[in-house]
Amino acid sequence: MKHTKLTVLVDMDGVLADVYRHFLDWHQKETGEELDINMMAGILEENAFPLFKKHVNTEGFFFTAPSIPASIEGLEYLNNKYDVVIVSSATEFPNSLKDKYAWLQKHCPFISWHQMVFCGSKKYIKGDIMIDDHVKNLQNFEGKRILFSQPHNLFVTDQTITRVNTWKEIENML
Amino acid sequence: MKHTKLTVLVDMDGVLADVYRHFLDWHQKETGEELDINMMAGILEENAFPLFKKHVNTEGFFFTAPSIPASIEGLEYLNNKYDVVIVSSATEFPNSLKDKYAWLQKHCPFISWHQMVFCGSKKYIKGDIMIDDHVKNLQNFEGKRILFSQPHNLFVTDQTITRVNTWKEIENML
Repeated sequence: MKHTKLTVLVDMDGVLADVYRHFLDWHQKETGEELDINMMAGILEENAFPLFKKHVNTEGFFFTAPSIPASIEGLEYLNNKYDVVIVSSATEFPNSLKDKYAWLQKHCPFISWHQMVFCGSKKYIKGDIMIDDHVKNLQNFEGKRILFSQPHNLFVTDQTITRVNTWKEIENML
Repeated sequence: MKHTKLTVLVDMDGVLADVYRHFLDWHQKETGEELDINMMAGILEENAFPLFKKHVNTEGFFFTAPSIPASIEGLEYLNNKYDVVIVSSATEFPNSLKDKYAWLQKHCPFISWHQMVFCGSKKYIKGDIMIDDHVKNLQNFEGKRILFSQPHNLFVTDQTITRVNTWKEIENML
């Protein structure tokens, strides 16, 4: 009998890439103003960051994002145990395509091109487990739904979704 | 009752983009030699075209490919009737990502970024109908399988697959 690993779909922004940290840094660098992340609970990124549109369309923005603490080690753990696929919304901001590919090459050399999906909507992607910070992606998904905490999703209380706050929690759960 | 359209997954290379024509042209331009497409039956592109690796990794190659006759009109017909998603293997050749996005913008302005998936493997993509020229993509797919004829697949006789030779046939079938 063939042993089949479960497929785990892992989001990039807000799960692997620390886009909040990066938006805050770029905003500060560009305007001198320090935005307060504590004021962003329940607000989508495009509304929380005044320069959102400019930054997400700038070549290099996504490539230079830092990784979320412990995410790379956590992803490597998952990659050794599951069939891991990185699924990232990218076609809305076409400059992000090359950046996201290069980010994965740099930070996650153990992820091959076979394991990458760059899309517009995640509703066409199938798997057994999805880890994402956007509830709209999870709600379209039929498998196990894991919500990675970020300011914009802090008020989500959907009972079909399991919330995690750190990659340590993901490793303990999976 | 909500009316739900069937989802049709449409491949790019060999279905929308005429990559054979393009490989032949680039080979001729570069070497002066005219390759004979009639000698390529049953041979995968990477083995049929001596400069395959060089060309697929060249920025601009995929953007400048011509479209397959009647494919754009056929795709627009499908797009008016179905939930169409363009699904293209692209992450193996990262320079193709931007090119393929730009090709779709140029040739198929009626396709939005929501309808694009650029991936490594198509086994993670779900839908009701798949149109592809590579049998390996169709064999991983659970829905209706439509094989678009190209030299490399001419000897495929899989009974679970419906072969079409032109976009007119696709329009008549769907």
